[in-house]
Amino acid sequence: MSSKFRVSTFAISIDGFGAGPNQDINNPLGVRGPELMEWFFATRAWKKMHGMPDGETGIDNEIAEHGLSGIGAWILGRNMFGPVRGPWPDESWKGWWGEEPPYHVPVFVLTHHPRAPITMKGGTVFNFVTDGIHAALEQAKAAAGNRDIRLGGGVSTIRQFLQAGLVDELHLAIRPVLLGTGEHLLHDIDLRALGYECWKSVSGERATHVFLKRG
Amino acid sequence: MSSKFRVSTFAISIDGFGAGPNQDINNPLGVRGPELMEWFFATRAWKKMHGMPDGETGIDNEIAEHGLSGIGAWILGRNMFGPVRGPWPDESWKGWWGEEPPYHVPVFVLTHHPRAPITMKGGTVFNFVTDGIHAALEQAKAAAGNRDIRLGGGVSTIRQFLQAGLVDELHLAIRPVLLGTGEHLLHDIDLRALGYECWKSVSGERATHVFLKRG
Repeated sequence: MSSKFRVSTFAISIDGFGAGPNQDINNPLGVRGPELMEWFFATRAWKKMHGMPDGETGIDNEIAEHGLSGIGAWILGRNMFGPVRGPWPDESWKGWWGEEPPYHVPVFVLTHHPRAPITMKGGTVFNFVTDGIHAALEQAKAAAGNRDIRLGGGVSTIRQFLQAGLVDELHLAIRPVLLGTGEHLLHDIDLRALGYECWKSVSGERATHVFLKRG
Repeated sequence: MSSKFRVSTFAISIDGFGAGPNQDINNPLGVRGPELMEWFFATRAWKKMHGMPDGETGIDNEIAEHGLSGIGAWILGRNMFGPVRGPWPDESWKGWWGEEPPYHVPVFVLTHHPRAPITMKGGTVFNFVTDGIHAALEQAKAAAGNRDIRLGGGVSTIRQFLQAGLVDELHLAIRPVLLGTGEHLLHDIDLRALGYECWKSVSGERATHVFLKRG
């Protein structure tokens, strides 16, 4: 198995939104955005990732665990690391996750603001990449070795990588909710023309999981 | 139970398309559009509707049967009755379905071309409504009595009725396929603002069924 660049367990609504509207420091996923994540919050995988006991086991959990395994590096858009409007890139901002973020591997954050890497507890190192998505992917590949690179989001970052034809695998968790407005994941992106096809669909407890890859 | 105006078992792709591109007389559902319908074609409900034996029973079939029961009238957009580009409204065109269409109740076809009603075998009567969606719904309600009115499509017709806030219930069958291009069902329609919510989600054999209604 060679290293893959993948989007895993990224949740969208029935109407195709990957984040709600009006994202800010109080609503990093946008208003109503957390409804997309409810399937994940319930799992043992999510709770373990955040140092909490218990959590549900089942299909959703199994898929979440699989999505988190074998990752050698992450790539995040700017808004995944810090608020759209807010104090960052103030040097005191070290992400949403406290002193020990749940990544435990190098994380490459796309931004226009140069900043020195930050080494956090537990193995997470935040690296700030100012020269675009191709550079971020190259650096992440070098860091990941033969493990996979996971693209965490947000929506606009995933859209950029998809449009550039760089993503090997895409797993979407379709949640049975309507957001109505927000950031649409696939609008005006022709995944079929880009060579993707859906090769598997699995019904979880709180989401339908569809797995796309390039043919 | 009072009469409801509903969209039932309308299939969309992962990327939200309700029909493929380049619809014409050879591709009434658009290129690749039939991929949306494969869940329905397999069911006993569909085969029975078209006078064929056998067909699968199971969750998809049960939902398809439920979607076809209790209907007192249908509303169809022009393109559901005849080809976008083609001979219709030539008087010889009597729809896609031959002499005995599978409706067996009055059908109200939205069009700009006045035409006398056509009585077909088996109880289907095609009525042509030239004065808009509200008029079509009024006529269909009068015909349906206390039974439901089903809106068959296509995409642009459903969009018009949704945007006018006229649809009571909407059942979508999300198919695990990518169409890439075509007619998008929900783009720029904020179902949440229109008062809809998803109250049920059911996994069938070949589609995930989500049920929306106004709160």
